[in-house]
Amino acid sequence: MSEYFEGIGKIQYEGPETENPLAFRFYDENKVVAGRTMKEHLRFAACYWHNFCWNGFDIFGAGTFDRPWLQPGDEMEMAKAKADVAFEFFTKLGVPYYSFHDVDVTPAGNSIKEYIANMGVMMDYLAKKQEETGMKLMWGTANAFSHPRYMSGAASNPNPEVFAYAATQVFTAMNATKDLGGENYVLWGGREGYETLLNTDLRQEREQLGRFMQMVVEHKHKIGFDGTLLIEPKPAEPTKHQYDYDTATVYGFLKQFGLENEIKVNIEVNHATLATHSFQHEIATAISLGLFGSIDANRGDYQLGWDTDQFPNSVEEWTPVLYDILKAGGFTTGGCMFDTKLRRQSVDKADFFHGHVGAMDTLAYSLEKAAELLDNDVLGANVADRYAGWSQDFGKSILAGDQSLESIAKYAIDNEIDPAHVSGKQEYLENVVNKVLCK
Amino acid sequence: MSEYFEGIGKIQYEGPETENPLAFRFYDENKVVAGRTMKEHLRFAACYWHNFCWNGFDIFGAGTFDRPWLQPGDEMEMAKAKADVAFEFFTKLGVPYYSFHDVDVTPAGNSIKEYIANMGVMMDYLAKKQEETGMKLMWGTANAFSHPRYMSGAASNPNPEVFAYAATQVFTAMNATKDLGGENYVLWGGREGYETLLNTDLRQEREQLGRFMQMVVEHKHKIGFDGTLLIEPKPAEPTKHQYDYDTATVYGFLKQFGLENEIKVNIEVNHATLATHSFQHEIATAISLGLFGSIDANRGDYQLGWDTDQFPNSVEEWTPVLYDILKAGGFTTGGCMFDTKLRRQSVDKADFFHGHVGAMDTLAYSLEKAAELLDNDVLGANVADRYAGWSQDFGKSILAGDQSLESIAKYAIDNEIDPAHVSGKQEYLENVVNKVLCK
Amino acid sequence: MSEYFEGIGKIQYEGPETENPLAFRFYDENKVVAGRTMKEHLRFAACYWHNFCWNGFDIFGAGTFDRPWLQPGDEMEMAKAKADVAFEFFTKLGVPYYSFHDVDVTPAGNSIKEYIANMGVMMDYLAKKQEETGMKLMWGTANAFSHPRYMSGAASNPNPEVFAYAATQVFTAMNATKDLGGENYVLWGGREGYETLLNTDLRQEREQLGRFMQMVVEHKHKIGFDGTLLIEPKPAEPTKHQYDYDTATVYGFLKQFGLENEIKVNIEVNHATLATHSFQHEIATAISLGLFGSIDANRGDYQLGWDTDQFPNSVEEWTPVLYDILKAGGFTTGGCMFDTKLRRQSVDKADFFHGHVGAMDTLAYSLEKAAELLDNDVLGANVADRYAGWSQDFGKSILAGDQSLESIAKYAIDNEIDPAHVSGKQEYLENVVNKVLCK
Amino acid sequence: MSEYFEGIGKIQYEGPETENPLAFRFYDENKVVAGRTMKEHLRFAACYWHNFCWNGFDIFGAGTFDRPWLQPGDEMEMAKAKADVAFEFFTKLGVPYYSFHDVDVTPAGNSIKEYIANMGVMMDYLAKKQEETGMKLMWGTANAFSHPRYMSGAASNPNPEVFAYAATQVFTAMNATKDLGGENYVLWGGREGYETLLNTDLRQEREQLGRFMQMVVEHKHKIGFDGTLLIEPKPAEPTKHQYDYDTATVYGFLKQFGLENEIKVNIEVNHATLATHSFQHEIATAISLGLFGSIDANRGDYQLGWDTDQFPNSVEEWTPVLYDILKAGGFTTGGCMFDTKLRRQSVDKADFFHGHVGAMDTLAYSLEKAAELLDNDVLGANVADRYAGWSQDFGKSILAGDQSLESIAKYAIDNEIDPAHVSGKQEYLENVVNKVLCK
Ligand SMILES: [Co+2]
Ligand SMILES: [Co+2]
Ligand SMILES: [Co+2]
Ligand SMILES: [Co+2]
Ligand SMILES: [Co+2]
Ligand SMILES: [Co+2]
Ligand SMILES: [Co+2]
Ligand SMILES: [Co+2]
Repeated sequence: MSEYFEGIGKIQYEGPETENPLAFRFYDENKVVAGRTMKEHLRFAACYWHNFCWNGFDIFGAGTFDRPWLQPGDEMEMAKAKADVAFEFFTKLGVPYYSFHDVDVTPAGNSIKEYIANMGVMMDYLAKKQEETGMKLMWGTANAFSHPRYMSGAASNPNPEVFAYAATQVFTAMNATKDLGGENYVLWGGREGYETLLNTDLRQEREQLGRFMQMVVEHKHKIGFDGTLLIEPKPAEPTKHQYDYDTATVYGFLKQFGLENEIKVNIEVNHATLATHSFQHEIATAISLGLFGSIDANRGDYQLGWDTDQFPNSVEEWTPVLYDILKAGGFTTGGCMFDTKLRRQSVDKADFFHGHVGAMDTLAYSLEKAAELLDNDVLGANVADRYAGWSQDFGKSILAGDQSLESIAKYAIDNEIDPAHVSGKQEYLENVVNKVLCK
Repeated sequence: MSEYFEGIGKIQYEGPETENPLAFRFYDENKVVAGRTMKEHLRFAACYWHNFCWNGFDIFGAGTFDRPWLQPGDEMEMAKAKADVAFEFFTKLGVPYYSFHDVDVTPAGNSIKEYIANMGVMMDYLAKKQEETGMKLMWGTANAFSHPRYMSGAASNPNPEVFAYAATQVFTAMNATKDLGGENYVLWGGREGYETLLNTDLRQEREQLGRFMQMVVEHKHKIGFDGTLLIEPKPAEPTKHQYDYDTATVYGFLKQFGLENEIKVNIEVNHATLATHSFQHEIATAISLGLFGSIDANRGDYQLGWDTDQFPNSVEEWTPVLYDILKAGGFTTGGCMFDTKLRRQSVDKADFFHGHVGAMDTLAYSLEKAAELLDNDVLGANVADRYAGWSQDFGKSILAGDQSLESIAKYAIDNEIDPAHVSGKQEYLENVVNKVLCK
Repeated sequence: MSEYFEGIGKIQYEGPETENPLAFRFYDENKVVAGRTMKEHLRFAACYWHNFCWNGFDIFGAGTFDRPWLQPGDEMEMAKAKADVAFEFFTKLGVPYYSFHDVDVTPAGNSIKEYIANMGVMMDYLAKKQEETGMKLMWGTANAFSHPRYMSGAASNPNPEVFAYAATQVFTAMNATKDLGGENYVLWGGREGYETLLNTDLRQEREQLGRFMQMVVEHKHKIGFDGTLLIEPKPAEPTKHQYDYDTATVYGFLKQFGLENEIKVNIEVNHATLATHSFQHEIATAISLGLFGSIDANRGDYQLGWDTDQFPNSVEEWTPVLYDILKAGGFTTGGCMFDTKLRRQSVDKADFFHGHVGAMDTLAYSLEKAAELLDNDVLGANVADRYAGWSQDFGKSILAGDQSLESIAKYAIDNEIDPAHVSGKQEYLENVVNKVLCK
Repeated sequence: MSEYFEGIGKIQYEGPETENPLAFRFYDENKVVAGRTMKEHLRFAACYWHNFCWNGFDIFGAGTFDRPWLQPGDEMEMAKAKADVAFEFFTKLGVPYYSFHDVDVTPAGNSIKEYIANMGVMMDYLAKKQEETGMKLMWGTANAFSHPRYMSGAASNPNPEVFAYAATQVFTAMNATKDLGGENYVLWGGREGYETLLNTDLRQEREQLGRFMQMVVEHKHKIGFDGTLLIEPKPAEPTKHQYDYDTATVYGFLKQFGLENEIKVNIEVNHATLATHSFQHEIATAISLGLFGSIDANRGDYQLGWDTDQFPNSVEEWTPVLYDILKAGGFTTGGCMFDTKLRRQSVDKADFFHGHVGAMDTLAYSLEKAAELLDNDVLGANVADRYAGWSQDFGKSILAGDQSLESIAKYAIDNEIDPAHVSGKQEYLENVVNKVLCK
């Protein structure tokens, strides 16, 4: 397909003062912050689905977007046209990575054989596009939720044949991801949940999911895929209850099936919101459990109960998160993947860029602020000080397993302990953060 | 103390037609349903705290209740007067069990030594009351959240001395529970959570909690307590985030510290609501994970974001739950404990009884309906039918670990599978339930 | 179109004991309750849109339903086939009423002229179907939210041309509703709201909406439509904020534009839930403000933040609501309209009937219970007693405007008033309701 | 009472670079922004209740704060000691205003006569403190919710005697507010709502509230109080449903009783959050309805369902709000009143200042950003452009009432209108805001 985003060239870094709305004000990919370039830190990726597979429909209305490649026509030609536009966009935007579901890029076909055949063709096409453009694959995944066959779940389906269909897609998509040099492989259980407990066997479905994930891990090792496997938690939507509710729930699942060292989490901001958690909560929880993998960088709406997948625009939300991530060593194979969609009213081609450029600048600016917070790490020093007692003899003996309730009670009574009340300093610490944010 | 509930005698079963508002219409403790008496099934317990330790204050206003035993005076005499009223209430109500926190029944004293001494006196007093009345202890627990020393947590406190104080209380309360013949011991982490991530080390606090729970388990075995240990999940309140968020979260915690066979959950209806789960979800999840222990039987308000601890009054909510519990074999050491409080406007003595009698009837009636549902088990038959494929060869081979993604993909492609779409029958199944509820 | 629901005949009342899942257990249309037949009280209506215009798609997946009339083909033929199936369904179900949006029944066409022409044809077709079947029209409405032109609102659109398009549809749909003998006309502002305040002029949009509604009222009188105009409140979805948030908000809007005696509300259960109100709250509020009109009878999910439009199945929810409605004199032109949709997994033709039959029985049973509550009206007597002071001299003088703050203060001080605390009796009253519900 | 905040002097403006945590970095009261000083724009006020009447208790635990003036002792002496500390705090902080409830500053006494007498003494004491310090009263109010007599409401109480008690307090507090030169008088209906519809007559209670507010207005005019009357909306808590749910609801109430030109709203940030509205929504709604009065400047927690009353710390939240307010002409008699409380763990005296200083700096910084947004008003220009059609002939004729549905339909059909789709530009506009926020 010929150039789609006519009149829009490669987005350039022009600095904070630029009046050009289609330039970066903060994202300077080669700028070094906290020991790495912004590009290395943030590892931006754009997604295929919201950008190129969605025409702006919602449950109350038809598509509003003009997307020539989503019109009727030869499916494979359309898929190639879509890929052309996608790579035009990725390269003009200047993100180093992209991500896709199998059927975002490949026509699903009318049979499992057609699906396999189409995947073969399109993976070659994508490989060629990657080579031409230098784009890299952040992660691949299989969409085992949109087709009607998955209406009652994929791996958790009451029918093993549906499980088998999903397994075939994941098998194919994992292989493709490896072939395309993908750095991660993601599993989002779009229909892995229940609509009503009246027809659901929770234990059975959990066993199915557990075995499915074990097979995914086994397959990874078998084919020598050296990327990271990621589960993306979400509490609900489209199902009433999704089994991968949040990070803590996924942790219990992984422990049950012996997978806690094999699979990490891909945390979506909006899914955290829907789970009644702050974004930082999910990140901090994942880090504390050794599960932190990657981020679907978007934002929700605190007044709405569905996944709005808006572009991230809050420096106040991202700064503490990036502080936590920097402190934990930064991303390894993961990154900031924009699982974001335009508002249905944003019908201009330029809106694609406004959304992503704003998001990238928000995260770049937050990264600088996070690095600054880390620099003189007042927060870290306060935490160290607050828990200092646990590094002293009595505290250490407890955590070392050298104490019992009885021995501790004896100590407490003998010493007539009466612990002092120490301020938690919340307001002060909030000011410490704002001191970095507001200049 | 002399009789407090003057004019109210022992509540009697008088059958559905009675016009006496202080009689049971459905709870006939000796009536046999599904193979056991109602008393054996439901194992009702009343609580000490909301009924006898609260004067009706809320965050916006002062106490509204007239509670002579909460007035200034000699603390131990007041504690005994409180116990007298409590046991008068328990026996008039006709619940076989009660539950308490250590400092509900015992003055906390001004030092750890006073606490220990007071506990000694009051446990003797309670033992005598139990003997006189035949009341039994459903569970004991320690309140490690109300005193200011616990403002930053108990086991998860940054200060090991506070941990030690909590350990002393739990040590003492577990011993007391054993001595009083308690059938369970509960841990509710009232301040085990965080107010702000800015001053919190999640990994550190989790380690502290893990070791604490291990010590609790070790102590249980050491003293030969043969009751059940229970954790009560709650997502938030008073803290912003409680570590025992919900059943799935507690499961992950127990797995991490090797405690999944030692501790079960005490599910509170209102805590499920606050966690954005249905009550049935929490029960079904606990059963499916082998964690089901006991219930704090109350209700929340779907429009309010705090713990209202109202009396259960929904047969529609309880029938499927009791169906699940019956199907799983019923309660063992647990039961239906009324963690319920009067509305602040319910200032009459009779209101104590209206609340509990209505609650007991609601659960008794629901039990009958649950037994009826189980009788011709249409729901169970539908589930069995829905998952039948997993009992056949291909399904079984998957769960047995005899398949890989690759072998399944080969099967799917070779057989060109195209699974049929089968109705989930949700509306029909909802009617099946209503057929039993509406007569 | 030939018979679609083959094998399913007209649904019959067979009584509580029937084992036939496709029979009514409680809805006996000629049974007299509280002075009217059930048919007269409940005034059931089925909807066109969810049943016949939706193929089971959701935002995460494609349609699951087999709906021959939604396939490609001649639009007018398809619309007639759809009408044939719809009326087959309505008559087999035995609801006296149905409801539609203009473009549910009529192809929207490719221009405003085609729209007008198609409406002409289809209104004749519907008139004929009504005549053949005896079906009556509960209400008509215009869909001014699904077409992309309405992406930024209809009457509240920044572009007056879009306002004009919506006005044309409403003009046409009102005329059609009158011609078809419709008993009400509904306005649901599907896109009347905002996505972001950054591009929105609230005052301007409110003026537009106000003038639009005034024109609707003027047109009603001009054409002599003697049905009721209804606004259907909803707090959000698809927009971030809908202007008709809830009943109280609509009241303020009507007062501002002098329309409070011209327009009433159509309360949808699920919209109440989304607005963080109980269904009964919205009904009681509407009654107290003189705005009660009609009901979109469905149910939401207390754990989900979007409109699930499930079938009503809770007698506990409906009984107090129908008690309030009976007490207020019952429906006049309004009724119980099933704005309900099948679960996406409910792919069997019989599921249409399971959903509606269960819903009708739920409401019929609730009606009987409500009548019983009203019979010995313990609730009403308690309310009368509770507010009795306001019927005495001092209370009356206040409400009559004969007192000032000063005169009251003088009274209070002179009499050294010290009001007694009287129980609100909430637990007792909840038992009063359950006494009727549980037998 | 002698100096309480020893070691803390008057907070000074030291500029963005200061390392002193007890200095202002942005709030320079004499700095001119958008034509007025910061002091004139922001009109900061501190509150009496959270700071000086609360000991840190919550529903799960006892007070954590050391507050000598809340200890047992002579009530009037304690009240004066409290006032001394309060004014020490206000003046050291450097806010020009404070606010109180009658019984924050005055012992309620054991009878209505004692209340009146105590008020007399304490109002003199406050007058003297004001004179000594130059502090001014932002607003006074009466607490008609904390005393048990108000458990079932104040003006909406079923008992007219309780109504009379509340009227006496409001009479007294209004007079006191006038005498102290208060610039506003606030009404927050802390218990004006219901706990259960089962015992509630909504229409009756609304009539009571309506008459009460009319008397408040009449009294204002009678005594020549020239401040503004304000209602503070809140959706729930402590009651299940508060009648002053949100701004739109209050508007309907005011219209019903003819008070829309007499009473404005005092919008609390956290109450907006609890009503599932954004703070900006409530402000923009109030402005659009001509009701904007004042702000209770605090913040809630998007994951919690109760009123946390935290200190405002989000520049991202406040900048658009202050932009809207500047655009609407700024505050008149209202201002930014800190209805904020320390976290229960913030037990240091300095924490009082950390909270307020951070809050004042947040708002001062946001004010500068808002002024900058307004300066080149890109947002305003975009809105003007977006709605331009309504200033042209056709649009104007509609709003002028010169069109009917019929005339518009004729126009639309004759012209075969087919409105173009215009981007809503949300992502672009979000970037416009961030361009000002991030430098
Ligand atoms: Co995602
Ligand atoms: Co999302
Ligand atoms: Co509990
Ligand atoms: Co509770
Ligand atoms: Co509706
Ligand atoms: Co709906
Ligand atoms: Co306030
Ligand atoms: Co508040």
